Amino acid sequence: MTSSHARGRRPAGSDTKAEIMAAARRRFSEMGYPRTTMRAIAADAGVDPRLITHFFGSKQQLFASVVELPFDPGTVFPMLLAGGDEEVGRRLAEFVLGILENPQSRNIVTGIIRAAASEEAAAAQIRDRVVVRILMPLARQLGSDRPELRAALVGSQVVGLTFARHVIGVPALQTAERSELVAFLAQVFDVYLRGTLDHEAD
Amino acid sequence: MTSSHARGRRPAGSDTKAEIMAAARRRFSEMGYPRTTMRAIAADAGVDPRLITHFFGSKQQLFASVVELPFDPGTVFPMLLAGGDEEVGRRLAEFVLGILENPQSRNIVTGIIRAAASEEAAAAQIRDRVVVRILMPLARQLGSDRPELRAALVGSQVVGLTFARHVIGVPALQTAERSELVAFLAQVFDVYLRGTLDHEAD
Repeated sequence: MTSSHARGRRPAGSDTKAEIMAAARRRFSEMGYPRTTMRAIAADAGVDPRLITHFFGSKQQLFASVVELPFDPGTVFPMLLAGGDEEVGRRLAEFVLGILENPQSRNIVTGIIRAAASEEAAAAQIRDRVVVRILMPLARQLGSDRPELRAALVGSQVVGLTFARHVIGVPALQTAERSELVAFLAQVFDVYLRGTLDHEAD
Repeated sequence: MTSSHARGRRPAGSDTKAEIMAAARRRFSEMGYPRTTMRAIAADAGVDPRLITHFFGSKQQLFASVVELPFDPGTVFPMLLAGGDEEVGRRLAEFVLGILENPQSRNIVTGIIRAAASEEAAAAQIRDRVVVRILMPLARQLGSDRPELRAALVGSQVVGLTFARHVIGVPALQTAERSELVAFLAQVFDVYLRGTLDHEAD
Protein backbone atom coordinates (compact mmCIF):
# COMPACT_ATOMS: atom_id res chain seq x y z
CA MET A 1 0.00 0.00 0.00
CA THR A 2 2.78 2.38 0.91
CA SER A 3 4.49 1.65 -2.39
CA SER A 4 1.34 2.22 -4.44
CA HIS A 5 0.83 5.46 -2.55
CA ALA A 6 4.41 6.50 -3.27
CA ARG A 7 3.83 5.49 -6.86
CA GLY A 8 0.87 7.86 -7.16
CA ARG A 9 3.10 10.73 -6.10
CA ARG A 10 5.71 10.25 -8.78
CA PRO A 11 6.19 13.15 -11.14
CA ALA A 12 4.22 12.83 -14.38
CA GLY A 13 6.07 10.80 -16.99
CA SER A 14 8.10 8.80 -14.49
CA ASP A 15 6.11 5.57 -15.01
CA THR A 16 6.31 5.99 -18.77
CA LYS A 17 10.06 6.39 -18.55
CA ALA A 18 10.33 3.25 -16.41
CA GLU A 19 8.19 1.34 -18.90
CA ILE A 20 10.39 2.44 -21.79
CA MET A 21 13.48 1.35 -19.86
CA ALA A 22 11.95 -2.06 -19.04
CA ALA A 23 10.93 -2.60 -22.67
CA ALA A 24 14.40 -1.56 -23.85
CA ARG A 25 16.18 -3.90 -21.44
CA ARG A 26 14.02 -6.82 -22.56
CA ARG A 27 14.52 -6.13 -26.28
CA PHE A 28 18.26 -5.53 -26.04
CA SER A 29 18.89 -8.69 -24.03
CA GLU A 30 16.66 -10.92 -26.18
CA MET A 31 17.34 -9.59 -29.68
CA GLY A 32 20.80 -8.10 -29.23
CA TYR A 33 21.76 -4.52 -29.94
CA PRO A 34 21.80 -4.37 -33.77
CA ARG A 35 18.37 -5.96 -34.29
CA THR A 36 16.62 -3.89 -31.63
CA THR A 37 14.80 -0.85 -33.03
CA MET A 38 13.51 2.25 -31.26
CA ARG A 39 10.19 1.62 -32.99
CA ALA A 40 9.85 -1.86 -31.43
CA ILE A 41 10.72 -0.57 -27.97
CA ALA A 42 8.16 2.22 -28.38
CA ALA A 43 5.49 -0.29 -29.44
CA ASP A 44 6.26 -2.56 -26.45
CA ALA A 45 6.02 0.40 -24.06
CA GLY A 46 2.96 1.79 -25.83
CA VAL A 47 4.50 5.20 -26.52
CA ASP A 48 5.41 7.36 -29.49
CA PRO A 49 9.03 6.72 -30.63
CA ARG A 50 9.66 10.47 -30.39
CA LEU A 51 9.10 10.27 -26.65
CA ILE A 52 12.06 7.86 -26.38
CA THR A 53 14.23 10.29 -28.31
CA HIS A 54 13.02 13.08 -26.03
CA PHE A 55 13.90 11.14 -22.85
CA PHE A 56 17.05 9.32 -23.91
CA GLY A 57 18.45 10.74 -27.16
CA SER A 58 19.86 8.13 -29.54
CA LYS A 59 19.56 4.34 -29.48
CA GLN A 60 23.18 4.16 -28.25
CA GLN A 61 22.40 6.47 -25.36
CA LEU A 62 19.22 4.59 -24.50
CA PHE A 63 21.22 1.39 -24.41
CA ALA A 64 23.93 2.92 -22.24
CA SER A 65 21.23 4.18 -19.84
CA VAL A 66 19.39 0.89 -19.37
CA VAL A 67 22.12 -1.71 -19.64
CA GLU A 68 22.77 -3.80 -16.55
CA LEU A 69 25.76 -6.09 -16.31
CA PRO A 70 24.83 -9.79 -16.48
CA PHE A 71 26.58 -10.32 -13.11
CA ASP A 72 27.35 -8.38 -9.94
CA PRO A 73 31.07 -7.53 -9.90
CA GLY A 74 31.08 -6.76 -6.18
CA THR A 75 29.99 -10.34 -5.43
CA VAL A 76 31.58 -12.25 -8.29
CA PHE A 77 35.16 -10.95 -8.23
CA PRO A 78 35.88 -11.67 -4.55
CA MET A 79 34.56 -15.21 -5.08
CA LEU A 80 36.59 -15.77 -8.25
CA LEU A 81 39.77 -14.40 -6.77
CA ALA A 82 39.42 -16.03 -3.34
CA GLY A 83 40.67 -19.47 -4.45
CA GLY A 84 44.29 -20.55 -4.55
CA ASP A 85 46.49 -18.15 -6.54
CA GLU A 86 47.31 -20.83 -9.11
CA GLU A 87 43.64 -21.24 -9.96
CA VAL A 88 42.66 -17.57 -10.29
CA GLY A 89 43.45 -17.22 -14.01
CA ARG A 90 41.60 -20.40 -14.89
CA ARG A 91 38.54 -19.52 -12.81
CA LEU A 92 38.34 -16.09 -14.40
CA ALA A 93 38.69 -17.66 -17.86
CA GLU A 94 35.86 -20.13 -17.14
CA PHE A 95 33.69 -17.32 -15.84
CA VAL A 96 34.24 -15.12 -18.92
CA LEU A 97 33.49 -17.97 -21.32
CA GLY A 98 30.36 -18.81 -19.33
CA ILE A 99 29.10 -15.24 -19.77
CA LEU A 100 29.79 -15.42 -23.52
CA GLU A 101 28.13 -18.82 -23.97
CA ASN A 102 24.79 -17.67 -22.58
CA PRO A 103 22.98 -15.87 -25.45
CA GLN A 104 21.31 -13.30 -23.18
CA SER A 105 24.43 -12.25 -21.31
CA ARG A 106 26.45 -12.37 -24.54
CA ASN A 107 23.93 -9.97 -26.11
CA ILE A 108 24.42 -7.57 -23.24
CA VAL A 109 28.21 -7.63 -23.50
CA THR A 110 28.29 -7.27 -27.30
CA GLY A 111 25.64 -4.53 -27.00
CA ILE A 112 27.85 -2.58 -24.61
CA ILE A 113 30.75 -2.87 -27.03
CA ARG A 114 28.71 -1.85 -30.08
CA ALA A 115 27.19 1.13 -28.28
CA ALA A 116 30.60 2.31 -27.06
CA ALA A 117 32.02 1.99 -30.58
CA SER A 118 29.35 4.04 -32.25
CA GLU A 119 29.01 7.27 -30.29
CA GLU A 120 31.24 9.41 -28.08
CA ALA A 121 28.40 10.08 -25.63
CA ALA A 122 27.64 6.39 -25.18
CA ALA A 123 31.35 5.58 -24.93
CA ALA A 124 31.80 8.10 -22.10
CA GLN A 125 28.79 6.73 -20.21
CA ILE A 126 30.03 3.18 -20.65
CA ARG A 127 33.59 4.07 -19.70
CA ASP A 128 32.45 5.52 -16.40
CA ARG A 129 30.30 2.46 -15.66
CA VAL A 130 32.97 -0.03 -16.69
CA VAL A 131 35.61 1.70 -14.59
CA VAL A 132 33.42 2.06 -11.49
CA ARG A 133 31.44 -1.17 -11.72
CA ILE A 134 33.99 -3.64 -13.12
CA LEU A 135 37.58 -2.40 -13.04
CA MET A 136 37.55 -0.84 -9.58
CA PRO A 137 35.98 -3.87 -7.83
CA LEU A 138 38.44 -6.11 -9.66
CA ALA A 139 41.42 -3.89 -8.81
CA ARG A 140 40.28 -3.78 -5.18
CA GLN A 141 40.71 -7.56 -5.01
CA LEU A 142 44.25 -7.49 -6.37
CA GLY A 143 47.06 -7.24 -3.87
CA SER A 144 49.73 -6.55 -6.51
CA ASP A 145 51.30 -3.29 -7.65
CA ARG A 146 49.39 -1.31 -10.30
CA PRO A 147 45.98 -2.90 -9.61
CA GLU A 148 44.03 -0.48 -11.86
CA LEU A 149 46.32 -1.17 -14.81
CA ARG A 150 46.13 -4.94 -14.25
CA ALA A 151 42.33 -4.83 -14.02
CA ALA A 152 42.15 -2.70 -17.19
CA LEU A 153 44.38 -5.14 -19.09
CA VAL A 154 42.20 -8.10 -18.07
CA GLY A 155 39.19 -6.08 -19.22
CA SER A 156 40.87 -5.28 -22.52
CA GLN A 157 41.39 -8.97 -23.28
CA VAL A 158 37.78 -9.77 -22.41
CA VAL A 159 36.56 -6.98 -24.70
CA GLY A 160 38.93 -8.11 -27.46
CA LEU A 161 37.86 -11.75 -27.26
CA THR A 162 34.19 -10.76 -27.33
CA PHE A 163 34.76 -8.43 -30.24
CA ALA A 164 36.85 -10.83 -32.31
CA ARG A 165 34.66 -13.88 -31.63
CA HIS A 166 31.15 -12.41 -31.56
CA VAL A 167 31.22 -9.06 -33.39
CA ILE A 168 33.77 -9.66 -36.17
CA GLY A 169 33.23 -13.44 -36.03
CA VAL A 170 36.79 -14.71 -36.54
CA PRO A 171 36.40 -18.41 -37.48
CA ALA A 172 39.41 -19.73 -35.51
CA LEU A 173 37.88 -18.32 -32.31
CA GLN A 174 34.39 -19.59 -33.08
CA THR A 175 35.51 -23.14 -33.79
CA ALA A 176 38.07 -23.40 -30.95
CA GLU A 177 37.32 -25.88 -28.18
CA ARG A 178 36.29 -24.30 -24.89
CA SER A 179 39.18 -26.14 -23.22
CA GLU A 180 41.68 -24.57 -25.65
CA LEU A 181 40.38 -21.08 -24.98
CA VAL A 182 40.44 -21.69 -21.23
CA ALA A 183 44.02 -22.97 -21.43
CA PHE A 184 45.26 -19.83 -23.20
CA LEU A 185 43.14 -17.27 -21.34
CA ALA A 186 44.00 -18.77 -17.94
CA GLN A 187 47.70 -18.19 -18.63
CA VAL A 188 47.09 -14.68 -19.92
CA PHE A 189 44.91 -13.61 -17.00
CA ASP A 190 47.59 -15.04 -14.76
CA VAL A 191 50.18 -12.77 -16.40
CA TYR A 192 47.98 -9.71 -15.92
CA LEU A 193 46.93 -10.53 -12.37
CA ARG A 194 50.17 -11.93 -10.96
CA GLY A 195 52.94 -11.31 -13.49
CA THR A 196 55.93 -9.17 -12.58
CA LEU A 197 56.60 -5.76 -14.04
CA ASP A 198 60.29 -6.20 -14.78
CA HIS A 199 60.58 -3.32 -17.25
CA GLU A 200 62.99 -1.44 -14.97
CA ALA A 201 65.42 -4.37 -15.01
CA ASP A 202 67.51 -3.11 -17.90
CA MET B 1 51.63 9.58 -72.39
CA THR B 2 50.68 5.93 -72.28
CA SER B 3 49.07 6.38 -68.90
CA SER B 4 47.05 9.41 -69.97
CA HIS B 5 45.92 7.47 -73.01
CA ALA B 6 44.89 4.50 -70.85
CA ARG B 7 43.14 6.89 -68.53
CA GLY B 8 40.99 8.23 -71.36
CA ARG B 9 39.78 4.70 -72.09
CA ARG B 10 38.51 3.95 -68.63
CA PRO B 11 34.81 3.20 -68.35
CA ALA B 12 32.74 6.25 -67.42
CA GLY B 13 32.57 6.79 -63.66
CA SER B 14 35.79 4.94 -62.90
CA ASP B 15 37.81 8.10 -62.27
CA THR B 16 35.04 9.51 -60.11
CA LYS B 17 34.99 6.36 -58.04
CA ALA B 18 38.76 6.46 -57.61
CA GLU B 19 38.56 10.11 -56.58
CA ILE B 20 35.91 9.35 -53.96
CA MET B 21 38.06 6.54 -52.61
CA ALA B 22 41.14 8.75 -52.43
CA ALA B 23 39.18 11.50 -50.67
CA ALA B 24 37.69 8.99 -48.24
CA ARG B 25 41.09 7.48 -47.38
CA ARG B 26 42.53 10.93 -46.71
CA ARG B 27 39.61 12.03 -44.51
CA PHE B 28 39.39 8.78 -42.54
CA SER B 29 43.10 8.67 -41.79
CA GLU B 30 43.38 12.38 -40.89
CA MET B 31 40.11 12.98 -39.03
CA GLY B 32 39.33 9.49 -37.76
CA TYR B 33 36.17 7.55 -38.47
CA PRO B 34 33.57 9.30 -36.27
CA ARG B 35 34.41 12.85 -37.38
CA THR B 36 34.50 12.01 -41.09
CA THR B 37 31.25 12.77 -42.91
CA MET B 38 30.00 11.58 -46.29
CA ARG B 39 29.29 15.22 -47.08
CA ALA B 40 32.94 16.21 -46.52
CA ILE B 41 34.21 13.34 -48.65
CA ALA B 42 31.76 14.31 -51.41
CA ALA B 43 32.94 17.92 -51.26
CA ASP B 44 36.61 16.88 -51.45
CA ALA B 45 35.89 14.66 -54.46
CA GLY B 46 33.62 17.26 -56.07
CA VAL B 47 30.61 14.94 -56.32
CA ASP B 48 27.07 14.74 -55.00
CA PRO B 49 26.90 12.80 -51.70
CA ARG B 50 24.20 10.59 -53.25
CA LEU B 51 26.77 9.31 -55.73
CA ILE B 52 28.85 7.94 -52.82
CA THR B 53 25.80 6.15 -51.45
CA HIS B 54 25.13 4.79 -54.92
CA PHE B 55 28.69 3.43 -55.32
CA PHE B 56 29.44 2.30 -51.77
CA GLY B 57 26.29 2.17 -49.63
CA SER B 58 26.76 3.35 -46.06
CA LYS B 59 29.67 5.18 -44.45
CA GLN B 60 30.68 1.90 -42.76
CA GLN B 61 30.79 0.12 -46.10
CA LEU B 62 32.73 2.96 -47.73
CA PHE B 63 35.26 2.75 -44.92
CA ALA B 64 35.56 -1.02 -45.22
CA SER B 65 36.11 -0.64 -48.99
CA VAL B 66 38.86 1.95 -48.85
CA VAL B 67 40.74 1.11 -45.68
CA GLU B 68 44.34 0.02 -46.05
CA LEU B 69 46.28 -1.41 -43.16
CA PRO B 70 48.98 0.94 -41.86
CA PHE B 71 51.58 -1.78 -42.43
CA ASP B 72 52.17 -4.73 -44.76
CA PRO B 73 51.63 -7.95 -42.78
CA GLY B 74 53.44 -10.08 -45.35
CA THR B 75 56.63 -8.06 -44.76
CA VAL B 76 56.27 -7.08 -41.10
CA PHE B 77 55.41 -10.39 -39.45
CA PRO B 78 58.34 -12.40 -40.82
CA MET B 79 60.68 -9.60 -39.65
CA LEU B 80 59.10 -9.38 -36.19
CA LEU B 81 59.10 -13.12 -35.66
CA ALA B 82 62.53 -13.79 -37.13
CA GLY B 83 64.48 -12.72 -34.01
CA GLY B 84 65.31 -14.94 -31.06
CA ASP B 85 62.25 -16.71 -29.63
CA GLU B 86 62.62 -14.92 -26.30
CA GLU B 87 62.31 -11.55 -27.99
CA VAL B 88 59.27 -12.24 -30.18
CA GLY B 89 56.62 -11.20 -27.64
CA ARG B 90 58.43 -7.98 -26.79
CA ARG B 91 59.03 -7.05 -30.44
CA LEU B 92 55.38 -7.60 -31.29
CA ALA B 93 54.33 -5.51 -28.26
CA GLU B 94 56.63 -2.65 -29.31
CA PHE B 95 55.29 -2.84 -32.87
CA VAL B 96 51.63 -2.72 -31.75
CA LEU B 97 52.23 0.25 -29.44
CA GLY B 98 54.10 2.03 -32.22
CA ILE B 99 51.06 1.65 -34.51
CA LEU B 100 48.79 3.02 -31.78
CA GLU B 101 51.06 5.95 -30.93
CA ASN B 102 51.01 7.33 -34.46
CA PRO B 103 47.74 9.33 -34.81
CA GLN B 104 47.22 8.39 -38.47
CA SER B 105 47.71 4.65 -38.07
CA ARG B 106 45.73 4.73 -34.80
CA ASN B 107 42.85 6.38 -36.66
CA ILE B 108 42.87 3.58 -39.21
CA VAL B 109 42.82 0.84 -36.58
CA THR B 110 40.10 2.46 -34.46
CA GLY B 111 38.16 3.17 -37.66
CA ILE B 112 38.26 -0.52 -38.62
CA ILE B 113 36.97 -1.45 -35.16
CA ARG B 114 34.19 1.13 -35.18
CA ALA B 115 33.04 0.15 -38.65
CA ALA B 116 33.00 -3.54 -37.76
CA ALA B 117 30.99 -2.81 -34.62
CA SER B 118 28.29 -0.87 -36.34
CA GLU B 119 27.11 -2.93 -39.28
CA GLU B 120 26.96 -6.62 -40.19
CA ALA B 121 27.97 -5.93 -43.80
CA ALA B 122 31.05 -3.97 -42.76
CA ALA B 123 31.92 -6.57 -40.11
CA ALA B 124 31.85 -9.36 -42.69
CA GLN B 125 34.04 -7.39 -45.10
CA ILE B 126 36.48 -6.57 -42.32
CA ARG B 127 36.51 -10.14 -40.99
CA ASP B 128 37.53 -11.49 -44.38
CA ARG B 129 40.27 -8.89 -44.72
CA VAL B 130 41.57 -9.35 -41.19
CA VAL B 131 41.67 -13.13 -41.53
CA VAL B 132 43.34 -13.12 -44.96
CA ARG B 133 45.61 -10.10 -44.53
CA ILE B 134 46.64 -10.31 -40.86
CA LEU B 135 45.84 -13.61 -39.18
CA MET B 136 46.88 -15.93 -42.00
CA PRO B 137 50.28 -14.26 -42.58
CA LEU B 138 50.87 -14.29 -38.82
CA ALA B 139 49.81 -17.94 -38.46
CA ARG B 140 52.04 -18.85 -41.40
CA GLN B 141 55.05 -17.63 -39.40
CA LEU B 142 54.20 -19.71 -36.33
CA GLY B 143 55.67 -23.16 -36.13
CA SER B 144 53.49 -24.21 -33.17
CA ASP B 145 50.30 -26.27 -33.07
CA ARG B 146 47.03 -24.39 -33.70
CA PRO B 147 48.61 -21.44 -35.54
CA GLU B 148 45.27 -19.91 -36.65
CA LEU B 149 43.94 -19.94 -33.10
CA ARG B 150 47.16 -18.42 -31.73
CA ALA B 151 47.13 -15.69 -34.37
CA ALA B 152 43.45 -14.95 -33.65
CA LEU B 153 44.13 -14.67 -29.91
CA VAL B 154 46.99 -12.22 -30.49
CA GLY B 155 44.65 -10.25 -32.74
CA SER B 156 41.92 -10.28 -30.08
CA GLN B 157 44.28 -8.71 -27.52
CA VAL B 158 45.36 -6.04 -29.98
CA VAL B 159 41.73 -5.22 -30.78
CA GLY B 160 40.86 -5.20 -27.08
CA LEU B 161 43.74 -2.92 -26.13
CA THR B 162 42.86 -0.51 -28.95
CA PHE B 163 39.20 -0.54 -27.99
CA ALA B 164 39.73 -0.09 -24.25
CA ARG B 165 42.45 2.55 -24.59
CA HIS B 166 41.32 4.56 -27.62
CA VAL B 167 37.59 3.95 -28.12
CA ILE B 168 36.28 3.60 -24.54
CA GLY B 169 39.24 5.59 -23.15
CA VAL B 170 39.97 3.67 -19.94
CA PRO B 171 42.16 6.04 -17.86
CA ALA B 172 44.50 3.35 -16.43
CA LEU B 173 45.47 2.36 -19.99
CA GLN B 174 45.86 5.95 -21.17
CA THR B 175 48.14 6.96 -18.31
CA ALA B 176 50.22 3.76 -18.22
CA GLU B 177 53.90 4.05 -19.12
CA ARG B 178 54.80 2.56 -22.47
CA SER B 179 57.34 0.35 -20.69
CA GLU B 180 54.62 -1.06 -18.39
CA LEU B 181 52.37 -1.90 -21.33
CA VAL B 182 55.27 -3.48 -23.20
CA ALA B 183 56.19 -5.58 -20.14
CA PHE B 184 52.68 -7.02 -19.82
CA LEU B 185 51.89 -7.40 -23.51
CA ALA B 186 55.24 -9.05 -24.23
CA GLN B 187 54.44 -11.79 -21.71
CA VAL B 188 50.90 -12.21 -23.05
CA PHE B 189 51.95 -12.42 -26.70
CA ASP B 190 54.54 -14.93 -25.59
CA VAL B 191 51.81 -17.09 -24.04
CA TYR B 192 49.75 -16.96 -27.23
CA LEU B 193 52.66 -17.51 -29.61
CA ARG B 194 54.71 -20.04 -27.68
CA GLY B 195 52.65 -21.21 -24.67
CA THR B 196 51.68 -24.86 -24.31
CA LEU B 197 48.15 -26.14 -24.68
CA ASP B 198 48.08 -28.38 -21.62
CA HIS B 199 44.31 -28.66 -21.41
CA GLU B 200 44.44 -32.40 -22.11
CA ALA B 201 46.68 -32.92 -19.09
CA ASP B 202 43.90 -33.68 -16.59
